[in-house]
Formats: sequence, C-alpha cells, structure tokens
Amino acid sequence: MRVILFVLALCLVAATAVRAADPLPSWNETAPKKSIIAFVQRVTKEGSPEFVPAAERIAVFDNDGTLWSEQPMYFQLFFAIDRVKTLAPMHPEWKDKQPFKAVLEDDLKTVLAGGEHALLDIVMATHAGNTTDEFSQTVKEWLATAKHPKTGRPFTDMVYQPMLELLAYLRANDFKTYIVSGGGIEFMRPWSESVYGIPPEQVIGSSIKTKLEIRDGTPVLVRLPEINFIDDKAGKPVGINQHIGRRPIAAFGNSDGDHQMLQWTTAGSGARFALLVHHTDAEREWAYDRSSSIGRLDKALDEAQEKGWTVIDMKRDWKLIFPFEKNN
Amino acid sequence: MRVILFVLALCLVAATAVRAADPLPSWNETAPKKSIIAFVQRVTKEGSPEFVPAAERIAVFDNDGTLWSEQPMYFQLFFAIDRVKTLAPMHPEWKDKQPFKAVLEDDLKTVLAGGEHALLDIVMATHAGNTTDEFSQTVKEWLATAKHPKTGRPFTDMVYQPMLELLAYLRANDFKTYIVSGGGIEFMRPWSESVYGIPPEQVIGSSIKTKLEIRDGTPVLVRLPEINFIDDKAGKPVGINQHIGRRPIAAFGNSDGDHQMLQWTTAGSGARFALLVHHTDAEREWAYDRSSSIGRLDKALDEAQEKGWTVIDMKRDWKLIFPFEKNN
Repeated sequence: MRVILFVLALCLVAATAVRAADPLPSWNETAPKKSIIAFVQRVTKEGSPEFVPAAERIAVFDNDGTLWSEQPMYFQLFFAIDRVKTLAPMHPEWKDKQPFKAVLEDDLKTVLAGGEHALLDIVMATHAGNTTDEFSQTVKEWLATAKHPKTGRPFTDMVYQPMLELLAYLRANDFKTYIVSGGGIEFMRPWSESVYGIPPEQVIGSSIKTKLEIRDGTPVLVRLPEINFIDDKAGKPVGINQHIGRRPIAAFGNSDGDHQMLQWTTAGSGARFALLVHHTDAEREWAYDRSSSIGRLDKALDEAQEKGWTVIDMKRDWKLIFPFEKNN
Repeated sequence: MRVILFVLALCLVAATAVRAADPLPSWNETAPKKSIIAFVQRVTKEGSPEFVPAAERIAVFDNDGTLWSEQPMYFQLFFAIDRVKTLAPMHPEWKDKQPFKAVLEDDLKTVLAGGEHALLDIVMATHAGNTTDEFSQTVKEWLATAKHPKTGRPFTDMVYQPMLELLAYLRANDFKTYIVSGGGIEFMRPWSESVYGIPPEQVIGSSIKTKLEIRDGTPVLVRLPEINFIDDKAGKPVGINQHIGRRPIAAFGNSDGDHQMLQWTTAGSGARFALLVHHTDAEREWAYDRSSSIGRLDKALDEAQEKGWTVIDMKRDWKLIFPFEKNN
C-alpha cells in the first residue's frame, strides 16, 4: 500500500513538473505551439545540422496587432489625439483648422478621411518640438492614466499573454528579441522593457529627425517635425539591417506591413521561422483580415499558405488573449 | 629550509594570481588606469549611491584613433582607394576624371586637396551599387590581404591592446560595449565581433541609404549612392539615441569628432565617465593633436582639462600599443 502511495506521489510530482515546465501555457496544443517548440529545439541543439550559435539567434516582432491590440485604431493614435486636446489651449488656431478641428470635436471619421496627410499633421504637431527626455516622460504619463475605449483598461494591459510567454521562451533559449514596428520608436521605448522585457536598444520603429542643441548649458536632443524613417513594409528589412546588421532567423507579424520582414527573414540560409497572428476572435479580441484598413492581412496570408509559414488562429490556438483574463 | 621554500612558493603563486587578476595588464599604473577601475567599482557595487543596474551600463567607443590607428589616413580610405583600382577596368572614364584619376596615379595629395566632395565621390563609387551581403564580403576579402603602409601588418592588427583589455574588463562587469564611429557602419560590422568582441548590432556609424529589391525571386538590400546619416560630431548623440535609446554612462574618444558624444554622456545624472586617447607616441604609434587634419584633438582636450575628464597619454600610460608587440 505504501509503495502504491509512493508511486502515486511520484507521478503527481512528475505531472506537476511537466506542467510547470510548459513554456507556453496559454497556447492550446495545436499546430503553432508545436511548430514553435520544434523550431527552437532544432536551432538550439548543439551538433544538429540546423544548430544556430546563440549570437545569431535574432527574433523580430511587429508590435501593433502582434504583441498588443490595434483596434479600433493604433494605440499611438489615441495618444496623438489626447495630445491634441491637451495642447489645444496653446493653439487657438486649431479650432478652425483641419484635421485638428475634427479631433477636438471627436469627429474621428473626418480625421481618418483626411488620410495619411491628416495623420502626419497630427503626429508632427504632437510628437515634435520637445526634447527626447520630455517626450519619453509624456508617453509614460499618458500610459499611466489613459484607458482603452472598449475594455476600459490601460493600453499596456492589452498585450497578448501567449506572446509574452513566447518572448520569454525565446530569451530562455538565448534568442535576442527585437520589436520591429511601424509605430514610433520613441513611443515604444519608454515601456517596452517593463511590459515586454525588450530593452530600448532592441526597439526599431519609425522616427522623426532629432538635433543636438545646447539649452542652459546642457546638451539636449530636440525632436524635429520631419520624418527620419518609416519602418513599415519594405522599410522593415532596411530598419533591421540598419539596427541589427544581421538577418533574423525568426519573424513574427500580423499584417501585410510585416510581409517583407517575413520574406527577408526566411530568405536567409539555414533554419528559419515565420509566423503570422490571424485575428479571428471577435468575442475575446477582434476579427479582421483582408479588408481591414488597420492591420490588413491579405498578401502575406496568401504567401503564408503557399510557403507553409505558421499562422495563429487566435480563437483556436490561444487559451487566453490578455493577461487580465487570468483573474476573471 | 623546506618551510622557507614552501613560503617562497606560496608567495610566487600569490604574485602570479595577482598578476592574472589584473584586468588591464598593458596599462601602466598611472592615473587613467586608476580612474577607470575606480569608476567601474563605484557603479557596480550594489548598495552604493552610484550603483548603476547592469542594463544601464552602456559604454560607447569611437573607433578610428580610439580602438585602432587612423594614420597616415583613415583605414577605410585605404579600402576605398584599393576599390577604385580594382573597379577601374569597369570604369575607363576614371582615367580622365577627378578624383579617380588622382587615385589611379597614386597622387594622394590631389585626392585630399579635393576635400570632402572628392572623398564623397570616391566613397559613393566604391561603397554603393552592391547588396549589403556583397559589400560585407568585399570588406572581409580586402581585410584578409591589405597591409598597412607603415607596419606592413593587416589593418586589424593595428588595434590597441590596452583598449581590447578595457573592452573585455567592462563587459566582465556587465557593461554593453558599443562602437559609435564616423566611419561606415557596414565597413566595421564584418569584423567588429571577431576583433573587438562587439557584435554588429552594437555598431553605430555613418551610412548610405539602402533599398529592398527582389532579384531572381530573392529579396536583397541594395546600397544606394545617397547619404543616410553622418555619425560624427553633433551626429554622435543623435546616432546613440537612434540606436540605443538611452544615454551611455561612459564614453571613449580621441578627437573633436567625439566631443559632443562625451558632452552628451557626461550631461546625464549619476556617475559618468569620459576619456580621451591623446596620441603622444611618435615612436610606437603617431603623435598628433591640435593641428592634425585627421583626428584633430583641440576643443575636446580643452574641455577635458576643464572638466577633469580622463586623458590617456599613450606614451606614458600604455605599456604596449599593439597586440603584436607582445611577440617582439
């Protein structure tokens, strides 16, 4: 009897250990989880023909729609709109000037109808003119109080729990994890380390120009209302090369904006991994793909099917979407 | 007697251990070595008021004249000149066109008299038009055979042994070491890891634009004859912010081109370290400063004296200059 109890106890301990050792507990036991783990095992097994030295284990992640949500619009746009409202008293002319007039009247339809040009006006008016240190502080203060219109949660709560686990799993296997986003590099850096464990030097994004100035005897970097780099589509491989100087072996995205990044990554020799997050869960998150104006996933989805890239079906493959669901 | 021998042996072992533990054996026991070690101890001692978490221990190094020599001219210029000669058969027009004519006639005086414009023509003709992978290969092949005109040694032999020790010492204390150079980022990356232990993603430099193209169904990055960024003088803090996104706590340079980098680094709060390499050794290396056209050190030297930055007197402070002296 005591022997049987002992064996049972051992089994329990073993089962617990197996559960505890699961690096991706919020992932269902479907194809994507298996393909991720198989890839990591292939490139980390010394002596295997597909072994990759730790220094070359570079993994790149899009941010909007891949690491956190991007609906009903990119979160950085909520920031820009809030900044227009905050700065409006210093700009009385905005009351009669588009696209600012529409922003102040909460008329998002008119703002978005203004297209890229309107958005650029808003970004320049709200992201430039300050120093890099001031801008970083403004982003942090905004994130501390702003709430997502649908969930009522801070925006940094709306990151994907399965992707947080994936980032940690890759780093535990000596991968260096990078963000490669169309969003603003200086908008992401103030919180990427605390939220994703990704330090500022591993964040690549779009940027405006900066200029060194001496103010009160102290050097500061002033943000200029002039585009420096757009880190989207064909810009992503350019940004990766500029910042990292070597080709990633794994790339994670969710839209056609990530298409060239996945092509660039998989065109290298040796083992490569490409993954797309397909937003299929209208209940727990959002469902959109080929016809969405935000995060459109069309051509990249076709190529994923053709090339056998891993596609995450959020509804099918993820047990949890957001970390806060754990407490529900 | 046996006791005395035993004690003597113990002393020998202890002396060897002390020598082995010296992280900077090629440095004389003068002020710079002491100030470096004191700084590292201050920022790494947990609980000390000047403690800096490992993630924020960023150290930036200029390359030309700080990590390797830069006389009689920047080594990248030797590369460019050799490339002009190699490519000349494909450019018969160069025989009659300056500055190429002067290069082909080994008339460096005329080349340099052409100033920045002539150098830019040479750089664009020799650094652009290929893919990033091709350029990297070209640099590696050149370094494998090219020799310095004075020492007859490969250029990568002409790195400073004391600085190699300093890089290793900082990394052993969890610093992240970066190159921040006016030289070409893609010229340094192919060899920075093997020579300095600095991976490509920690190299910042000047760059030309690149563009994603599909060639034979494969994406490649093509190097365009157009300046993207000049990482010199006031550009260095801009480059540091763009790539690292946080302020270094230690900066190492040798010329006025590094002046703003040292100012930017030391303007941060908490413990900061700034160091200049002063080329004072005409016998073992070169002696030059305020009036040199290459690596001019004038205003930064004044500020170093004013602010108490550490200045290395190569002749006085370094036991060895180059690694190959160890075998002489």
